[in-house]
Amino acid sequence: MHEIDVVGIGNAIVDVLAHAEEDFLAHHGLAKGSMSLIDDRQAHALYSAMGPGVEISGGSAANTMAGIAALGGRAAFIGKVRDDQLGEVFAHDIRSIGVSFMTPPALEGPSTGRCLIMVTPDAQRTMNTFLGASSGLTPEDVNPDVIRAAQVTYLEGYLWDPEDAKNAFRRAMDVAHAAGRKVALSLSDAFCVDRHRAEFRELVRRVDVVFANEAEIMSLYEVTDFDAALQAVRADRTLAALTRSEKGSLLLDGDEVHMIDAEKGLPVIDTTGAGDLYAAGFLTGYTQGAALHQCGRMGAIAAAEVISHMGARPRPTCRPWSRSGWSK
Amino acid sequence: MHEIDVVGIGNAIVDVLAHAEEDFLAHHGLAKGSMSLIDDRQAHALYSAMGPGVEISGGSAANTMAGIAALGGRAAFIGKVRDDQLGEVFAHDIRSIGVSFMTPPALEGPSTGRCLIMVTPDAQRTMNTFLGASSGLTPEDVNPDVIRAAQVTYLEGYLWDPEDAKNAFRRAMDVAHAAGRKVALSLSDAFCVDRHRAEFRELVRRVDVVFANEAEIMSLYEVTDFDAALQAVRADRTLAALTRSEKGSLLLDGDEVHMIDAEKGLPVIDTTGAGDLYAAGFLTGYTQGAALHQCGRMGAIAAAEVISHMGARPRPTCRPWSRSGWSK
Repeated sequence: MHEIDVVGIGNAIVDVLAHAEEDFLAHHGLAKGSMSLIDDRQAHALYSAMGPGVEISGGSAANTMAGIAALGGRAAFIGKVRDDQLGEVFAHDIRSIGVSFMTPPALEGPSTGRCLIMVTPDAQRTMNTFLGASSGLTPEDVNPDVIRAAQVTYLEGYLWDPEDAKNAFRRAMDVAHAAGRKVALSLSDAFCVDRHRAEFRELVRRVDVVFANEAEIMSLYEVTDFDAALQAVRADRTLAALTRSEKGSLLLDGDEVHMIDAEKGLPVIDTTGAGDLYAAGFLTGYTQGAALHQCGRMGAIAAAEVISHMGARPRPTCRPWSRSGWSK
Repeated sequence: MHEIDVVGIGNAIVDVLAHAEEDFLAHHGLAKGSMSLIDDRQAHALYSAMGPGVEISGGSAANTMAGIAALGGRAAFIGKVRDDQLGEVFAHDIRSIGVSFMTPPALEGPSTGRCLIMVTPDAQRTMNTFLGASSGLTPEDVNPDVIRAAQVTYLEGYLWDPEDAKNAFRRAMDVAHAAGRKVALSLSDAFCVDRHRAEFRELVRRVDVVFANEAEIMSLYEVTDFDAALQAVRADRTLAALTRSEKGSLLLDGDEVHMIDAEKGLPVIDTTGAGDLYAAGFLTGYTQGAALHQCGRMGAIAAAEVISHMGARPRPTCRPWSRSGWSK
């Protein structure tokens, strides 16, 4: 098997993005900026109430892999769709950006997962995920040859929600480490951390790289102050990239500490995918052997690009980053 | 039944938009700026070759109705989807922007129609349509009460391609005229005019308002000079709105002639939907009893808005026109 830079394992989701006012969130009891899991019935009700949408392939780790491919890296993705129209859209989009995606679709069971995303006028996104077929990811979907071929196996914290996916996650970590490969973890969401705190604390010590934003890392250590979280994560000794939106990111690796400024100059239209693309930029540098602060710089640039337009993946153009594309 | 401003009858289509280079069009034998009909097999092959896409509800008359609703008008739409995921997306999007859409989905047969749209760096769109379930529109889907309740019945020329839809089109025109209502027709596409020229010549004389761009009106009268087309359409005496992209539009109504400048100041990102939204602006004015030149002005403004971002419908925001929304 050819060498891979990063293989991502995550929920295979199609995003449905729509603009919404603050009132809409309040009326539907949605916590701004968070990701909530919803069932089929709730998805139906919320979709009925939403404005007209745009469908774009999403999924946290899938977005990260799309970003790595757009930056010229070799990326693969493992995740589960159904053999339905949205499943076909997901597979087409991730393959056509250059990511290897070989997980066979489910032939029965729930339909392809969807994330209903409300973008408020302040560019914040509030996500409501119907996991659908994504929940059907099992350890059997994790091809050990692919894991062994990858420098880094990247796991999204959201995988901890469905039980089978959690086992797939653990299997991938074991295979990677047995092969002397690295494992990276994104904490995904403060509420997700809240649901699985004890296990995540253990995981952060076991993986090689952890990505978290301010809310997530404070939730993990149950502190209300960022500096307290910083001290806690340093004590765990894992390489950590802590993102703080416009305040930039902090990189910790043993004794090494870097403060990376956010990239300026681009408009902020929709923050969906900021963390996913930060990870894409960082891991592209990391797998190329870049210095830690350079990895952070690449993360900041990739995040700035993705928040300058609607949608959680780089603009679908053959010319990564430099030219105006999808929206401007 | 409540009074309706405009009811549109057309193909119910979900657009799949992707950026493409000129080379891609050449390689696949696609004529830039045109709409080609493709079958299921061709749709599959072209989709496989395309880059990552964005799915947005489309369809020419459907876009026009969405525009009228966004401008505050009362619009209804008649068109056929399947009971599948893309059919649900189409119905959600058009209803959530405020258009009444009551046509029941097909329970069998081909899937919901799709239009694969390649947007080249010059902002031109090249469309390849798999009509799918749209072809199943029949005269029985045209509710005469809805036609009689509408000041204007608006028909897209693309309906002339599927045989049953053509009969639905004729039925709607007869019901509208018998009720003393107006009928408007969009010629849709020069190649479409070429396929149905003799029938379209007859139709242009029978309807009350005709929309056409430069290529379409020249194809209709088989002339190579715009002024020759202008003379021909004046001889037919039908109210005509002839659009010429950045050169503005020409309005003809009996002896009345108006030259309306294009709206300046907005960027041109994607010309998909320009004609559809021109018709939306025009008909909004027309059904409100605006003077002819004011109708043209409203058409120009609506067209300028829709070409300033990707997608063929107004930006999905609750605040029509004035605020920045989907992309900027």
